[in-house]
Formats: sequence, C-alpha cells, structure tokens
Amino acid sequence: MSVITVGTMAFDAIETPFGKVDKIIGGSATYVAYAACNFVRDVKQISIVGYDFPEKEMKELQSRGVDTTGVVVVPDKKSFFWSGKYHIDMNSRDTLVTDLNVLADFNPVVPDSYQDAEFLMLGNLMPSIQLSVINQMKKRPKLIVMDTMNFWMDSALEELKEVLKKVDVLLVNDGEARQLSNEVSLVKAARSIMNMGPRFLIIKKGEHGALLFHENHVFFAPALPLEEVFDPTGAGDTFAGGFIGHLAKTKDISFDNMKTAIIVGSAMASFCVEKFGPDRLKEITREDIEARLDEFVQLVNFDIDLV
Amino acid sequence: MSVITVGTMAFDAIETPFGKVDKIIGGSATYVAYAACNFVRDVKQISIVGYDFPEKEMKELQSRGVDTTGVVVVPDKKSFFWSGKYHIDMNSRDTLVTDLNVLADFNPVVPDSYQDAEFLMLGNLMPSIQLSVINQMKKRPKLIVMDTMNFWMDSALEELKEVLKKVDVLLVNDGEARQLSNEVSLVKAARSIMNMGPRFLIIKKGEHGALLFHENHVFFAPALPLEEVFDPTGAGDTFAGGFIGHLAKTKDISFDNMKTAIIVGSAMASFCVEKFGPDRLKEITREDIEARLDEFVQLVNFDIDLV
Repeated sequence: MSVITVGTMAFDAIETPFGKVDKIIGGSATYVAYAACNFVRDVKQISIVGYDFPEKEMKELQSRGVDTTGVVVVPDKKSFFWSGKYHIDMNSRDTLVTDLNVLADFNPVVPDSYQDAEFLMLGNLMPSIQLSVINQMKKRPKLIVMDTMNFWMDSALEELKEVLKKVDVLLVNDGEARQLSNEVSLVKAARSIMNMGPRFLIIKKGEHGALLFHENHVFFAPALPLEEVFDPTGAGDTFAGGFIGHLAKTKDISFDNMKTAIIVGSAMASFCVEKFGPDRLKEITREDIEARLDEFVQLVNFDIDLV
Repeated sequence: MSVITVGTMAFDAIETPFGKVDKIIGGSATYVAYAACNFVRDVKQISIVGYDFPEKEMKELQSRGVDTTGVVVVPDKKSFFWSGKYHIDMNSRDTLVTDLNVLADFNPVVPDSYQDAEFLMLGNLMPSIQLSVINQMKKRPKLIVMDTMNFWMDSALEELKEVLKKVDVLLVNDGEARQLSNEVSLVKAARSIMNMGPRFLIIKKGEHGALLFHENHVFFAPALPLEEVFDPTGAGDTFAGGFIGHLAKTKDISFDNMKTAIIVGSAMASFCVEKFGPDRLKEITREDIEARLDEFVQLVNFDIDLV
C-alpha cells in the first residue's frame, strides 16, 4: 500500500559535541521517505523546495521508489534552512537559524495520482496546512498519522485541536504531551489527548524510548543504547517513517501490529543518529535492519515463568 | 537461600507535589527487606537504630521472616533521619536535613548465624563499611550486589574502587554511571565500570527504566507508566530488594535470570512509589505482584515475525 508523506525537504547546519556540518540535506519528509522506502516501494512525497535543492538528492529518492510528483520546485527562492546546536547530553538543542524561504508559501496540493493512498503521514507543519491536506483527500485514508510540536501549541492551539479531531495517531514528545494535556503524569496526559481525537498516541522520549497508548493499553519500546549518538536530527521523523512504513507494508493497523511498528521505527531511528543527516539511512541494507531488529528483541526479551 | 542486607533503617520526612509526611519509617535496608521478603523467607538484616525506632516496625519485619539479629539498637541515641523535598517532575530532589545520629557510629558486625548466606546486598553506605562487611564473610557469598551514590565518588573514590573489585553487581543511576566512568555514552560507561570489577552493571533511570549490562549484552527493563507517582523515596532500594530476592529464590545468577530479576525489581518499585514510605509494600499480596508482573509482560511484549 502506498504512503503519502507531507513535510519539509530542506538544508540543515548542525553542530553536535561530535562534529559540525555546514549544509546537509534535511527536512521531515526527507527522513520519513528514506525510512519508509525500506518497507514500501510506493512513498508519495508532498513538499516544497527551492532552486538550490540538489537534483541528485531527488533522483536518489526516486531510485528508492519515492514519488516526487507532489514536490514543488520554486525557481526563484531558496529551500528551507534550519541550523541548530545540540547540548552535550544530546537531549536538548538550540535553534540558531530558521530561514523559511520557500516554506513561507507552502500550500500543498495533493496530486490526483496520490488519491488512492491509504496511509497519510503529516509531518510537523502549521496545523492549517495539515488540515488542508486531509480535506483534499477524496477518500479518507485508512490511517492518518500526524506529528506536531510545542510551537503550534503556543501559537495555533485551536487549529491544532481541529486537526487532532481528524487523525488516528498523534506523535509528540513527553514535554509536548504534558503541555497539550496540562497533565504531569504521562498516563493521564495520554487519556486526555486521546479524548481530543487520536485513537492512538505515541509519546517519544528520545534516548529513553517511546510509549504507545490506545484505550487502556500501553506499550513501551526502548531506544537502543548506543556507543555514540552522533546526530539526533531527524530521528523522530525516521521513527515515524519506519512506523508508518511497517504498517503500510503489513496492511494491519491493529494495536498489536502498531507495537511491532514502533519497534521498527525505533530500529530505523537508531541508524539515523549514527551519522550526520540522512547519510546512514542511505547505506543500510535489509540485512542491517533485520540484525538491528534482532538486537531489539534481545534488548527487551525476558522469561517471567520462573516467578 | 538467604539474603543478607546491610543498610540504614531510619526516619524520613518527605515533601512531594502530592503531599507531605513529617516522620515515617525509611532507610535502604528497610525497603530492601520489605521487597525481598516476598520472595525469600530468610532475609538477614544488618543495620543500626536508635532508641526511638519503633518496636512495632521491628516486629512487622520479623513477622515477614526478616532476621533482625544483626540490627544494633543504641539506647542513648536517635535513629538516622533524612528529610527531602521532591521537585515537580519527581526526578530530582533537594535534601533538607541529614541527621546521622546512630549512623555516625555504624560499624556493622556480621553475626555468626548469618555466615551461611549466599546473597549479600550492600546498601548505599560509606565504601569502607561495605568493604568491612565483605571481609567479615568467612565464605564469599555466591553473589554480592552493591549500591552506592555520587557522594562517595566525590569523597571516597579510592575506597569505592576497592569495593568495586570485590562485588558482582553494581547498582547506580545514569548520572552516577557517567561520573564514575567519565563517559557520556552509557554503553561506554558500562564497559568502563565493568572493567573496575563488577561483572554486571545495573543503571537505574527512574521513570525511564533500568539497563542491565554484562559482557557485550544489554537488557532494558521499562518502568511501568503510572497515573501517579506519589513518593519515589525508597524505589531504588525496593528495586534492589526485588532483584536480589528473585535471584535468591531461584538460586540462578545467570544473565537470563537477572533479566527476569530486573523486571521483578521494577514491579516492586512500581508499588513502592504509590504511597509514602514503605506503606504500599506492606499491603501487597502475592496476587498483586503477579498481576503487576503481567502488566510488565504486556508493556514490552511484541511480535517481530511480520517484518
């Protein structure tokens, strides 16, 4: 089944305790696509780039089955640019520069050829843009997953709540879950947020893993303890790409299969952080992914019969 | 098999965002004993208390099979007293008062009747005291587990390193693991610490769970997401008590069984935080523990065959 992914394709400049890069490929839809294309050969991209976005990168995505029909190229503007610096613990970062450039005019149009997609991944964008994409779908997708961030909770809360009513899965981090619900306990926060619309809630906790909530159930996926976290940029989007990619591949949106999908997402994210930008995602093979998934099984597998 | 637990038995005054108690029973050996006695009927306590420590509490422990032969009662001094206040996120706290009282003279003597114990739990104490207990054992226990804290890394690092050479399992939190190893990555920190002596390392991350390292293996146990964390005091000691209690019950110190033991410890800790002090640990039944263990199985169980 095919997956539509809506989000940014951009340039990033990143500084971490392990190094610095001046201008590399980034953007939420880029990471989602590089992760999801390992599981489905039909990822349909909706984004906007400027004249400076490399043709080579577009071809690289296309070679992996990513459909770029929905990527608008603006001939007289630059691509979105973000620059950030990570703190020593890699859990927090400061944004140094945000140049919207083409993103200021982003008004995504869903191509006719995308209308049959059954999975929709809404990257972190202005809620009104996310809503516009949902409303353009002639047939509601089987599953709509959305990402968002605290910025929209501060600046566009009412619009955000409108989108929440229309999605199946919300992805936020722990701080955002607490802000959106006004609850300290993540269990209470999850209940409150699921009352706003999404039947499933994923709370990402970075190096501390992720929680999946649904009705009265909760599932926990750890992050793989790594020797080096080189660059966390894009890890959340890569997680989302692996998650929705696995669901689309298996055509199964049950809670049980979402557990597996979260492990798949965590495995993909664990590759992402090993190099700057999406470089590591471009290298990995099917065998690498399977070996990493086995590491997750070893990481959490235990026998409770003895008790 | 029997477990010796060495540590404090004390009074605590605790303030959390959910309430305040002026003087309740606390101390590391108290929590270890209340947790471990659910799994082994032969917990042998080594501690020191003052004239003010309630006889009722001692009887309560004895009624659960806890041997208090090794608890010295000092007739003219008060028990150790600690007072602390938790921050809103419950992950950090400020110590308000530390009255050592009897603890200033704590020079534990291992009773002859304890010499056959095969499991030794060294609570967080001055390293020289921990070493003295190890040296008093005529036959080395099958497994020695030790807890410690950053205070001893700052003030008695060389003595601490001497103890580390003689123990099998070290319990620390993530910040302490980083301080002890001078490594940011927990994977690297674990390798460095295991080179100091312990064959097994448990890194506790509070609400983010715990990691068990051994050779090149790693296992992750989540903390149960709870609606309310009422009082985290004693959760680490309760975890340790459940961990060593399960190992002693099953007489199996393999890595695989330690995984199960960590889940048992996490389950016991999840009860501890539900009420102030050890109150919740006194109420729970075998059925409560089994139901909670099943919640842990549900929390992390997933099927990866589909991938």
